[in-house]
Amino acid sequence: MYTRTLSKPDGRSLRLYSRRPIPETISSPPTAPQGAGANSYLRWHPLRREWVAYAQHRQDRTFLPPAEHNPLAPSNDPKRPSELPVGDYDVAVFDNLFPTFSTHATAQPDEIVETRPAKGACEVVVFTQDPSQSLGRLPLAQIELILEVWGERYADLGRRDDVQYVMPFENRGVEVGVTLHHPHGQIYAYPFVPPVPATELAAQLEYKQQHGCGLLEHLLADEVKDGRRVLYLSDEAIALVPVCARYAYEVWIAPRRAAPSFADVTAAERAEIARALKTILLKFDRMWDKPFPYVMVVHQAPTDGRDHPEAHVHIEFYPPYRMPGRLKYIAGSELGAGAFTADTLPEAKAAELRAVEVSLE
Amino acid sequence: MYTRTLSKPDGRSLRLYSRRPIPETISSPPTAPQGAGANSYLRWHPLRREWVAYAQHRQDRTFLPPAEHNPLAPSNDPKRPSELPVGDYDVAVFDNLFPTFSTHATAQPDEIVETRPAKGACEVVVFTQDPSQSLGRLPLAQIELILEVWGERYADLGRRDDVQYVMPFENRGVEVGVTLHHPHGQIYAYPFVPPVPATELAAQLEYKQQHGCGLLEHLLADEVKDGRRVLYLSDEAIALVPVCARYAYEVWIAPRRAAPSFADVTAAERAEIARALKTILLKFDRMWDKPFPYVMVVHQAPTDGRDHPEAHVHIEFYPPYRMPGRLKYIAGSELGAGAFTADTLPEAKAAELRAVEVSLE
Repeated sequence: MYTRTLSKPDGRSLRLYSRRPIPETISSPPTAPQGAGANSYLRWHPLRREWVAYAQHRQDRTFLPPAEHNPLAPSNDPKRPSELPVGDYDVAVFDNLFPTFSTHATAQPDEIVETRPAKGACEVVVFTQDPSQSLGRLPLAQIELILEVWGERYADLGRRDDVQYVMPFENRGVEVGVTLHHPHGQIYAYPFVPPVPATELAAQLEYKQQHGCGLLEHLLADEVKDGRRVLYLSDEAIALVPVCARYAYEVWIAPRRAAPSFADVTAAERAEIARALKTILLKFDRMWDKPFPYVMVVHQAPTDGRDHPEAHVHIEFYPPYRMPGRLKYIAGSELGAGAFTADTLPEAKAAELRAVEVSLE
Repeated sequence: MYTRTLSKPDGRSLRLYSRRPIPETISSPPTAPQGAGANSYLRWHPLRREWVAYAQHRQDRTFLPPAEHNPLAPSNDPKRPSELPVGDYDVAVFDNLFPTFSTHATAQPDEIVETRPAKGACEVVVFTQDPSQSLGRLPLAQIELILEVWGERYADLGRRDDVQYVMPFENRGVEVGVTLHHPHGQIYAYPFVPPVPATELAAQLEYKQQHGCGLLEHLLADEVKDGRRVLYLSDEAIALVPVCARYAYEVWIAPRRAAPSFADVTAAERAEIARALKTILLKFDRMWDKPFPYVMVVHQAPTDGRDHPEAHVHIEFYPPYRMPGRLKYIAGSELGAGAFTADTLPEAKAAELRAVEVSLE
């Protein structure tokens, strides 16, 4: 992997990644889109015991611009401002113009609950220069590169004192609120370990202490033995609808070994996770012959300076549809109680996905 | 409050409530809609440490039927099946035809994670016989009656051994997935204390043990002193946008005293909560001059047989819009990390709602 780090006119970072050496001639676009000054902060929610981030400048962020104003389409033309320069590179990562978390955040107003600056980082990961592509249709080598970029960003952001948790994710489709159609994901680097991974890690730590082996490793082994929900399997990686899926088409992808993060996977594991990921993404789109919306998140070890032998990196997909044209709404029971009610059994949805034939080549 | 309990042809309960004596002549409609046998069960999610309910029969539930097939419009006509009979009553509660939780659930299949039958109850609360009404436009006396019904259902369901938590809620609007437009809410009676109230109660208990007073009582007193986010205030009740609102127009309504449930509020408190509730609902609809969608949930004390001096009943609204026509999507950060990012400050949204003038009479 070749990388080059540039700086935008407004000081934001732009990182280019490629499987080939990156030409020295590439420079940051002369005219980057302009954002408002970001100075978000956190308020403590004393009942839910979680931090809530307030980022007022995000209310006016770019929302589904026409194709000719796609800020992720490379451009060196000052009349068509872009985040990305023209040139030979594969993947780009830059600081979000409308970040929720930022190393520059300093605001800490006096309120009736505790507050703190929303330190951290929000990055945009552009999967390809081609606006008409999608993550799943990219060549395997490009998907592997993206996983390697996730690992590099995990290590780089994780080294910062103000970052305790690094989470890559992708919101795909208007159904989950995507604001730009160009294939891209995001990375949020939180100044705290957020509640969902904190719960998962606590469960994993307790299991590891009691049983000496990993909770997710054990569950994956049981899933392999059961077999009904497995969608992809090799010595290094697995994709499956988990036995406890909350969304109809929920899918997890993981290395079978408990590597803590994408910075810790081997090249062989990365190659196999890329194959599993491409398999799932192609199945999703082929199933109903239309682009399948989803929220995809990556759970890995916190970067809080402590050891996390319990962590096991994995990708989770939360697709909003429960059948063609029918969304699963996250409503009263899910939002108010935290209790998910599924209309379908994971085995049935896994059978649908297993039946979809795809070719990786 | 007058009540009568009837039985539907398929054995489901139908309870009628009124401010006047209910005529003896009312009987259950002769032809009730038919559901499939419900035998949901729970699977344990070992990483998130929560129960997930699987209710396959719900996949085919009634979805936005035309007005002439509204199953909540009273009918004694066998050609037009209805859940409700014609007659003089104000509010009706019946067992959901497609329940996620049911006292009849027995299924407990062998899986690679722990399973148990989805015991409990799912009830539908019909707020009025008039399909064209809404909760907020009902007379105050009718809203008070609904709160009294919530209290009666809390006490009645809470007495059951298979019920540990009773949560009334309303999903309003297609934006949050409502499947019937007739004004109605639901009550889920869970066989466990779900994660969200469990977290709230743990925080409240710890606070009570450390400070000797209630966490929510203390927060409400601070909000009254601050004043910027208060939308309704009397000696008995308060409505406000909380300082730690996660949704742009999140509103809480509570008695100022820490009553544990709607079964424990005084008549004066109930009357004031009804006034606060009607005020908020009218403000919501008046603000943009269109029906304002929301998820509304009620948090109260568990019914797990233990004392809960820390509990303080309150209503929480989670409206999906962050500005006219713009939804707040619950996506990567919220679903994958449990970290909410708000685009607006609670004070600003409270100011908008405070400026909307409404009359309760």
